[in-house]
Amino acid sequence: MKKSIAIDMDGVLADVEAHFITWYEKEYGERFSKNDLKGKTEENAFPKKGMVKKFASTKGFFSTVPVMDGAVEAIKELQKNYEVYIVSAAMEFPQSLVEKRSWLSEHFPFIHWKNIIFCGDKSVIGTDIMIDDHLKNLDYFNGETIMFTAFHNIDFDNHTRANNWREVLKILKSLEKF
Amino acid sequence: MKKSIAIDMDGVLADVEAHFITWYEKEYGERFSKNDLKGKTEENAFPKKGMVKKFASTKGFFSTVPVMDGAVEAIKELQKNYEVYIVSAAMEFPQSLVEKRSWLSEHFPFIHWKNIIFCGDKSVIGTDIMIDDHLKNLDYFNGETIMFTAFHNIDFDNHTRANNWREVLKILKSLEKF
Repeated sequence: MKKSIAIDMDGVLADVEAHFITWYEKEYGERFSKNDLKGKTEENAFPKKGMVKKFASTKGFFSTVPVMDGAVEAIKELQKNYEVYIVSAAMEFPQSLVEKRSWLSEHFPFIHWKNIIFCGDKSVIGTDIMIDDHLKNLDYFNGETIMFTAFHNIDFDNHTRANNWREVLKILKSLEKF
Repeated sequence: MKKSIAIDMDGVLADVEAHFITWYEKEYGERFSKNDLKGKTEENAFPKKGMVKKFASTKGFFSTVPVMDGAVEAIKELQKNYEVYIVSAAMEFPQSLVEKRSWLSEHFPFIHWKNIIFCGDKSVIGTDIMIDDHLKNLDYFNGETIMFTAFHNIDFDNHTRANNWREVLKILKSLEKF
């Protein structure tokens, strides 16, 4: 049987970081780089606090987020050897449910609806592997974990880090050897 | 730590069977009883085939479904001793996502968004217990299973059967004794 992987959307399949920067500039006229955000929390990412949560609650945010570099090719590659599930904590923002579902159909039409999970917390997800950017999800997971680099997790080393999708594939290949 | 339970929506929290009957009568003028449907498949529940799937794809169906008798009180009771998750296979019908989320907020406002999961198949749900009406979900589940009676599962005995929410509570109490 194929091993199963739970793959996060925001910050992993979807480049929300770039999108936050674009939306912040649009709203406040100030442009930040990804480097500027490094080591900050989501709450304090920008001078105006709580913007990450505000944008995430705004209609149109999730439907227009850019795809993370290399994600489409990597998911296609992973589907050859793994049962790939997309697991997104969408429940906090109800308006995001339909936007996230449409976004996946648009950019990842090769992912079957049976393999999509929108949840609140991820503690009951029982896949073999989890790829996520949030410690709150990875720390309570029982299987193998890969932490996808995001500005808010730079200072942590609780999990195997992948800086991009190329590194994810490399890590998974090395895990297969054991 | 509290044991966790995955509880299905359609046919368990929500009386979709009653709703199908109401919608069928509204559409075709023919009234069926729950007894008439017993032992039938979802596909062949009514003389006009495929109606269950048609209704489930129609806007407004899930937002207006009646609550299953005794479900509200039972969930409140279960929350005292279990970590209760609502797990619904909503992904096949994207329009149902928002309707189901609103329906839960309306009828079960005491369920936190962190405890709601909308998925495709349920094979990666890792709770201790699952309450569901569908064999396709229960058969592949690793923990304890309770099959909530529905017209389409009358002829199966693969799982401990509960005919109503009172019986669910009784079964769970008896499990606790061991």
